[in-house]
Order: sequence, then C-alpha cells, then structure tokens
Amino acid sequence: MRKYHNIMEIITHRRSIRSYDSKEIEAEKMDYVLNAFRKAPSAKNLQPWKLIVIKDRHKKNDLAIACNNQGFIAEAPVLLAACAKEEEAYGVMGGYMSSYPIDIAIALEHLILAAAEQGLGTCWIGAFKEKLVKDILGVPENVRIVALTPLGYPGAGAETPKRGRKSISEIVCYEKYCD
Amino acid sequence: MRKYHNIMEIITHRRSIRSYDSKEIEAEKMDYVLNAFRKAPSAKNLQPWKLIVIKDRHKKNDLAIACNNQGFIAEAPVLLAACAKEEEAYGVMGGYMSSYPIDIAIALEHLILAAAEQGLGTCWIGAFKEKLVKDILGVPENVRIVALTPLGYPGAGAETPKRGRKSISEIVCYEKYCD
Repeated sequence: MRKYHNIMEIITHRRSIRSYDSKEIEAEKMDYVLNAFRKAPSAKNLQPWKLIVIKDRHKKNDLAIACNNQGFIAEAPVLLAACAKEEEAYGVMGGYMSSYPIDIAIALEHLILAAAEQGLGTCWIGAFKEKLVKDILGVPENVRIVALTPLGYPGAGAETPKRGRKSISEIVCYEKYCD
Repeated sequence: MRKYHNIMEIITHRRSIRSYDSKEIEAEKMDYVLNAFRKAPSAKNLQPWKLIVIKDRHKKNDLAIACNNQGFIAEAPVLLAACAKEEEAYGVMGGYMSSYPIDIAIALEHLILAAAEQGLGTCWIGAFKEKLVKDILGVPENVRIVALTPLGYPGAGAETPKRGRKSISEIVCYEKYCD
C-alpha cells in the first residue's frame, strides 16, 4: 500500500474510480472509512445522516440502473448511499438553505479521502434518480439521498489521468469578489 | 508542529477554533491550504467556486457582525468566504438539486483538514446573513455564499473538548434504510 506523507498527497492522488476488483474489503479498513465519515463536523453538530452499506448483488445491480445505468457501480464489493434526515439538519445556513447537503458532503468526502489513503477506490455519484434509489433501499419520504459511491479495490484500467483544475488565480479573490 | 500519521488523526484532532492569535500565516501555508481547496472534486469537474480571502480589519469586523455577531471571526488574520457560481454547477444532483452546496462543502473541508494538519485553526460558519455578506464583499446576485471560516493560529482557550459523535450503530444501516 502506498504511504502518503501528508493530506495534500492524498488529495492529489485520489481519482474517481470507475473499474473495481471483486476482492472483499478488510473489516479494519471498513471500520476506518466508516469512522472517517462518523467523525465529520456538521452544522450545530446535529449529524443528520445515515449511511447505507449495500453488498447484495441484486440490489447493487438495481442501484446501478437507478444511477442512470452506470454499470461499474455494481462491480464494487460495496456500494454506499449517503442519506440526510432533512428535519434534523440546521435549517437556515446563510439564512437561506438547509445544511444537509453540506453536512453529508463533508462526511462523505472524509470517507473518500480515508479510502484513498487505504488504497480503496470510490467515485462520487450525483447522477441518480432519487425516487428509484429510495424505493430500492426503503428510504422514508422525509429522508433525502445526497450521493452514492462504490467502494472497493481499483480494477484494471482504473488508473485514469488526473482531470484538470482551474488555477489559483482563477478561483481566489482578495478582499472582494472578482470575476 | 504536531506530526499526523494518517488522515484519521487529522480528522480526530480537528476542532472548531473560536479564539485566534494575531500571528500572520506563512505564505507557504496559505498556498498549501488554497491548493487543498483548489484540487477538490466537483460534480462533472465544473469547479463552480470562488474563494474570497479577507485580511482588511474593517471588512472582517463588518463580516463578524453579518455572521450574527460572532466576534471571534474578526480575530483571525484571515477570513475566507466560499462562494458558488450556481449557474456553473451541475443542476440535477439526484435529479432534484444543484450540486453547488456539495461542491463547495467538499472543497472547503479539504482546506479545513489541510489547515488542521498545518497547525492552523478554522471554524465552519453557517450562521450568517447572506445578503449582508454579499454587500460587504461585492458578490453578484447570481453567486451564492455557502459558508465562511476564519483561518489562523489558535489563540488562548482555543483547546476545547471534542464534541460527541453518534456511534456507528446509530448511523450505519445494512442493505436497507434503518431508523
């Protein structure tokens, strides 16, 4: 397993993995990534989240279809669905929005970085039909699905080039907004 | 500076810091945390973000007021406002929502974890009045403020106890949703 010397190395080497080996994930590694999620900060520490771990082959296949037919999702030994209990979240982030997408994003990115450190692949899945995913997983009406990710060892062809990023000068402004 | 051996140690030791030293942040550390933000993944790699760096004392004071009078925010040498260009974000996450709160949350949490690793304090600020913040920073109508954070060395009394987290059994479900 690759040894990372700091968090920047993990951030830099993480990729969206779209090919998975069927190899099982060791229990210690599962515990590690679940705890990375669990320990995340959330608005007012409300922790308005549930994380569903799916290993059943039929459910994974159904979920891959609900994720706009992204078949690679079902290759991974584990599929995760990150849910938000909207009523338990902080309702007025910035005075205008619920904190739940932010809370769940922080926690799932913790898991994704911890997985990368442990040699495990993931892929943020935002292209899915929420109603279909909820039906498959028995998720109640007042709970939202924010994102999914497969989790497993990268398979053949998973090593894709890093996608580009904007430069610092394109995204950082000083003292006031800049275009 | 404390040496962290893995990401779990950073996640576990990070705190919301509400007291800051006036000591300046070294340029290399600023570069490091800004790049942690910059390298974040986003839906379809659209990177719909801008990060405003505020050092001006008067602006920091005005922003502390716009953040529901959280005075400690103005103590830090730097204040960051994380903005989203909503029109540039992926519009149909899960078929129902814009990706912008998720994209910006991922990037800002990268910065926050990288700051913790470098001995710098931060604090997710979700309690603010968006219109007031936008007026102070000249942010256009079609750009959202998602969150702010102070950034600086922790001051006296910043070492507060870790707030509790739910247990794994309270937040993880297997194969289907659980209450």
